[in-house]
Amino acid sequence: MEGKRILVVSAHAADYVWRTGGTIAKYIKHGANVDVVVLSFGVRGESAAQWKKEGATYDTVKQNRLEETTKAAEILGVKNIEFWDLPDYPMRPYLTEDIRKRMVKKIREVRPDIIITHDKKGKDILNPDHNDVSEFVFECSIHSNSRGVIVDNLPTTKQMRLFGFEPHQTELSQFVPDELVDITEVYEQKVAVMQCFQAQHHLIQYYTERANLRGNHLRRISGNQTYKYGEAFSSFFPIAGDELV
Amino acid sequence: MEGKRILVVSAHAADYVWRTGGTIAKYIKHGANVDVVVLSFGVRGESAAQWKKEGATYDTVKQNRLEETTKAAEILGVKNIEFWDLPDYPMRPYLTEDIRKRMVKKIREVRPDIIITHDKKGKDILNPDHNDVSEFVFECSIHSNSRGVIVDNLPTTKQMRLFGFEPHQTELSQFVPDELVDITEVYEQKVAVMQCFQAQHHLIQYYTERANLRGNHLRRISGNQTYKYGEAFSSFFPIAGDELV
Amino acid sequence: MEGKRILVVSAHAADYVWRTGGTIAKYIKHGANVDVVVLSFGVRGESAAQWKKEGATYDTVKQNRLEETTKAAEILGVKNIEFWDLPDYPMRPYLTEDIRKRMVKKIREVRPDIIITHDKKGKDILNPDHNDVSEFVFECSIHSNSRGVIVDNLPTTKQMRLFGFEPHQTELSQFVPDELVDITEVYEQKVAVMQCFQAQHHLIQYYTERANLRGNHLRRISGNQTYKYGEAFSSFFPIAGDELV
Amino acid sequence: MEGKRILVVSAHAADYVWRTGGTIAKYIKHGANVDVVVLSFGVRGESAAQWKKEGATYDTVKQNRLEETTKAAEILGVKNIEFWDLPDYPMRPYLTEDIRKRMVKKIREVRPDIIITHDKKGKDILNPDHNDVSEFVFECSIHSNSRGVIVDNLPTTKQMRLFGFEPHQTELSQFVPDELVDITEVYEQKVAVMQCFQAQHHLIQYYTERANLRGNHLRRISGNQTYKYGEAFSSFFPIAGDELV
Amino acid sequence: MEGKRILVVSAHAADYVWRTGGTIAKYIKHGANVDVVVLSFGVRGESAAQWKKEGATYDTVKQNRLEETTKAAEILGVKNIEFWDLPDYPMRPYLTEDIRKRMVKKIREVRPDIIITHDKKGKDILNPDHNDVSEFVFECSIHSNSRGVIVDNLPTTKQMRLFGFEPHQTELSQFVPDELVDITEVYEQKVAVMQCFQAQHHLIQYYTERANLRGNHLRRISGNQTYKYGEAFSSFFPIAGDELV
Amino acid sequence: MEGKRILVVSAHAADYVWRTGGTIAKYIKHGANVDVVVLSFGVRGESAAQWKKEGATYDTVKQNRLEETTKAAEILGVKNIEFWDLPDYPMRPYLTEDIRKRMVKKIREVRPDIIITHDKKGKDILNPDHNDVSEFVFECSIHSNSRGVIVDNLPTTKQMRLFGFEPHQTELSQFVPDELVDITEVYEQKVAVMQCFQAQHHLIQYYTERANLRGNHLRRISGNQTYKYGEAFSSFFPIAGDELV
Repeated sequence: MEGKRILVVSAHAADYVWRTGGTIAKYIKHGANVDVVVLSFGVRGESAAQWKKEGATYDTVKQNRLEETTKAAEILGVKNIEFWDLPDYPMRPYLTEDIRKRMVKKIREVRPDIIITHDKKGKDILNPDHNDVSEFVFECSIHSNSRGVIVDNLPTTKQMRLFGFEPHQTELSQFVPDELVDITEVYEQKVAVMQCFQAQHHLIQYYTERANLRGNHLRRISGNQTYKYGEAFSSFFPIAGDELV
Repeated sequence: MEGKRILVVSAHAADYVWRTGGTIAKYIKHGANVDVVVLSFGVRGESAAQWKKEGATYDTVKQNRLEETTKAAEILGVKNIEFWDLPDYPMRPYLTEDIRKRMVKKIREVRPDIIITHDKKGKDILNPDHNDVSEFVFECSIHSNSRGVIVDNLPTTKQMRLFGFEPHQTELSQFVPDELVDITEVYEQKVAVMQCFQAQHHLIQYYTERANLRGNHLRRISGNQTYKYGEAFSSFFPIAGDELV
Repeated sequence: MEGKRILVVSAHAADYVWRTGGTIAKYIKHGANVDVVVLSFGVRGESAAQWKKEGATYDTVKQNRLEETTKAAEILGVKNIEFWDLPDYPMRPYLTEDIRKRMVKKIREVRPDIIITHDKKGKDILNPDHNDVSEFVFECSIHSNSRGVIVDNLPTTKQMRLFGFEPHQTELSQFVPDELVDITEVYEQKVAVMQCFQAQHHLIQYYTERANLRGNHLRRISGNQTYKYGEAFSSFFPIAGDELV
Repeated sequence: MEGKRILVVSAHAADYVWRTGGTIAKYIKHGANVDVVVLSFGVRGESAAQWKKEGATYDTVKQNRLEETTKAAEILGVKNIEFWDLPDYPMRPYLTEDIRKRMVKKIREVRPDIIITHDKKGKDILNPDHNDVSEFVFECSIHSNSRGVIVDNLPTTKQMRLFGFEPHQTELSQFVPDELVDITEVYEQKVAVMQCFQAQHHLIQYYTERANLRGNHLRRISGNQTYKYGEAFSSFFPIAGDELV
Repeated sequence: MEGKRILVVSAHAADYVWRTGGTIAKYIKHGANVDVVVLSFGVRGESAAQWKKEGATYDTVKQNRLEETTKAAEILGVKNIEFWDLPDYPMRPYLTEDIRKRMVKKIREVRPDIIITHDKKGKDILNPDHNDVSEFVFECSIHSNSRGVIVDNLPTTKQMRLFGFEPHQTELSQFVPDELVDITEVYEQKVAVMQCFQAQHHLIQYYTERANLRGNHLRRISGNQTYKYGEAFSSFFPIAGDELV
Repeated sequence: MEGKRILVVSAHAADYVWRTGGTIAKYIKHGANVDVVVLSFGVRGESAAQWKKEGATYDTVKQNRLEETTKAAEILGVKNIEFWDLPDYPMRPYLTEDIRKRMVKKIREVRPDIIITHDKKGKDILNPDHNDVSEFVFECSIHSNSRGVIVDNLPTTKQMRLFGFEPHQTELSQFVPDELVDITEVYEQKVAVMQCFQAQHHLIQYYTERANLRGNHLRRISGNQTYKYGEAFSSFFPIAGDELV
């Protein structure tokens, strides 16, 4: 993982934490460079708990999400995180040509070996923003690889690997794991980072148990009994390399 | 690849050569141990050319296939090859409980890291034997891993990786590559081994071009321009490991 | 059905009549409150017969569709019907942010137990508007349930049930019935309401026979021989409740 | 649930406990009659832990499974449980014509409103026996409904409802929940019954967490916050009835 | 259609009449040679009405089906019809190696341009025999084309076209029409032939309406308004020829 | 093919050449009228080679593509070719209402029996523009057939046939051939036309071999050994006609 460059694109502030926080922490621990782009603070779509507070406004909710997420990034060891502050619910109208160019530029600057974002093979049954972002990131990656798409004289990228993290209700969203990553050695970090989001206490339990579930799957599929906790990803492309893996 | 143990199970004599010959040669070159089980000589299903010869009988065709395949195995460097001499077209009635036990035993003896056989995710539209063998090998691998299935006191296996090689008409058979393997360094061997099957000259061209096609896909998906020739495989299970691959 | 609140959203003026007219009539007969939103008059997409009349213009066709549909609503007993008068063929450019907010507001005002609209699991092979409307209604329902989406201080809704009615050519549109509803007791109303659309006489036969077909399916699947006529729906979500149904 | 007749068919001794134990307990609590057929003791396929014991033999493992399962049935309140004692791993060769007739007879004796068995829509990726049993039970239900299939002068059945419980790895097995059942009121029973299977302690955690996961899904999809624990089922047929559910 | 050779294989006595009777009549009218193989009389699976008669036995039902079907064949103009008299419900155990050889022989004798049987792309949700027969006929066609499968010195066949006729509940069985055939000119024959099966009067209405439904689809898809009645088929293979059709 | 009217719509300048050049040449040779609309020059998405040239600009690349494509059209015998000069990568924002009307108008002017464009059943995994264009052309064809969509008093069209040509990586894009067309007699033209695109020499090999591959499939599926080279298409609709084809 040493020296790998990873770009994570999250539709809402905490999406990436629940589903790929452990993998991020592990890659950082082993010397990878991880950049995170948070497209929106999820003020409308994923802040129900914050809106229940007396006197909540768009700005107080946003400020609250910013604080939580910044703290979460610190715990994970993420140094490069950007908040693009797009509206959400819906997000599609705000994924404009300008935002597209900005994302192509970002990809060319980071030059990632791996992009991690929302699942593309299935379709999130509960969150249309997630599907839009998955499609958007995918298209920007294609454009970034294309010599004819010129942005600020940045050189084109080579085809990188793209992965989708889990939606909330996997079976209803046709999510099928292509790769399971053991996160046992950073599990305490994942637990700690989830604690940043106290308002969503039901998600803390949910994703704690999911880490166990994926750990169970890891052991069953690999035969390796040291795997305790995991995260699951779909792969946008087949693996192309020197041997079977 | 050094030290890996691989078990290849082929429904008919030459199935494995066309679709995974390059990968076998590469693994052997790099120090892997490869065992091949050829379930049938393909006398009925895949020997049209031999039957056109004057005076062809079941036995002459079988002898011919044995010679071809033995020579092919030599070129690939395969030392352990077994011919189980089942009838084909159809093969299903002959995949009996005894044959199942024999296969479980074989798996436990070889203790493969990787099993390569016919595709399981799709369904071969031209060859029902291939589907039966895929299902058969899969089930035997499950049984082999199970402590309660006792065969000659051989210890159970751990979950190994299973891969499916390509059917002849991929799109009609819903074959989707999960992994593409570069075979450039052993390509000459693959060309040579295909020459063993002169009676099927149209397949020589077909699989030569397919190696190019997969090479094109390898370059496109990996960005690695040194990949010239390839083979494609589906994966029966997700990848479960320490990082994203 | 007593006291249930139902919201029906129809892309064009008569879509809902052919496919869910019987179910609407039955619910109303049993004391449900049914609101209907007709997004467009279907002037361009579904008024071929009207355009054949000498001197037809956009306005005469629209007036004609309004009259037909108003009469149809009366026969079904629908008291609350709104015509949003969007253009059709295509409709997508007119499903703007304003229309989205209007729909979220409508959902929060009606507070439906059930929303019935175009099928979402499949994809109508003959009518792109239907697919756009299905996706639009679905997204608005998600937004309506979300506390952060604020519209005129209307309280958020709880997750309601969503159903899709049949497209015209079901198999080509991957429509699969999840629920079949017996409409025998209101069948005369359905026949009467279809008569409002004399210009589309071929559809009268088509949906009369379809009611028989669904009646046949109802009998076969339930074993209840009193079911004579039916309508079919797909379900956007699984059933979540106290027992198996 | 009062007075409902339910038939549960389980490939191996404990399959039904993990996946539908809560639903069984709930139905029994509310006055349903539940019959369970356990086709095999799962000696070969699902008794890894028992085989690890010193001196384990086919008979000791079987006896152990019998005791566990009998105790489990008691805790759930199941009075009618039959052990058909078929071999497993594989089970297919033992699903003979005689066994088929026995199952048709059983269905006609129980005359179930509901049959619960292994999932049919997907395909269990880890356990071929489960797929064979699902297909077998389905076929027997069709035969039971058919007047021309005569068994001991038992009258034919009407079309009943058929449900599939969860496989172990749902996404890899294409399992999609059609119905989620709240089991909160009998959750203590489910916990207790899982304790009967101490040898499979990893499954106790796994299905405890799964009950939480399904509880989360139940709340999200129904909007009913009192649902804490659940079980998920696929439905073999659409719902055919008087209204939308 | 002049001179075409067609082989129809029907699992039960009347399957082929309801679903492809019109197409058969049309081909015969235009000079085709049609052979029909009826594998079973459908005594157990498709003779519910006959079993309701006082004193019905296996033999009386069978005799009844034989008479009906013979008469039906006469009306359609079928001169070559064979009754293989296999048991049904289930049929799978009786599709033995001998029956397979008999079918290969039949195919080689008829040398059909077209084989019509049960659908293979989907899976009949109500009738497992249909799925088994579809798979069986498909495999026999592959064997028939194979030079190594030797039966009575009959020459191998060339790849013929294979089509699947409709199952009863199309959407639930994933049946998707690939080809729709206009049967307007022989519609009276289809009506007459359905009358041979008075005991299944509900099917007479059902398939009469289905002919209308397919006529509607034919008009919509072809733009040809003279098409009034039709039948639908899936195609086992793509079309391979000189131009787009 | 004599007298047939064909409209080809290509997202980028050369898409149609690689995938349907042979079929176009054959239809023209046999007296069909072929119109081609090239929506963009593919300056950004499909001109990597041109951008490598010293001093390349948007305009030089565009000029280069125009010259290549014009020459290609000449070789194929296409007399009516239009370049709509839309931007690409992405193209979606430029498929405006005006462009939609222009396409409806074009369809009504050409009045095609057949429209050939990008595949709609699958989804191109490497080129989002292709998917957008397929959907766009499909919708315009529906609008063109609709009496209520009025453009310059041009009469509506009847339902025409629509076909999708191959994406680059077929299996990853779920492309499944519905029709294979033999192009043997015009193969020299296809070779010559591909030579116009020297900058994409890797595609010349790729599509040369693909013509062989499809020739192999043609022979296998038709049994006609004179077919040497082919092209593959998916069909948007079933075939509706007088007989099975």
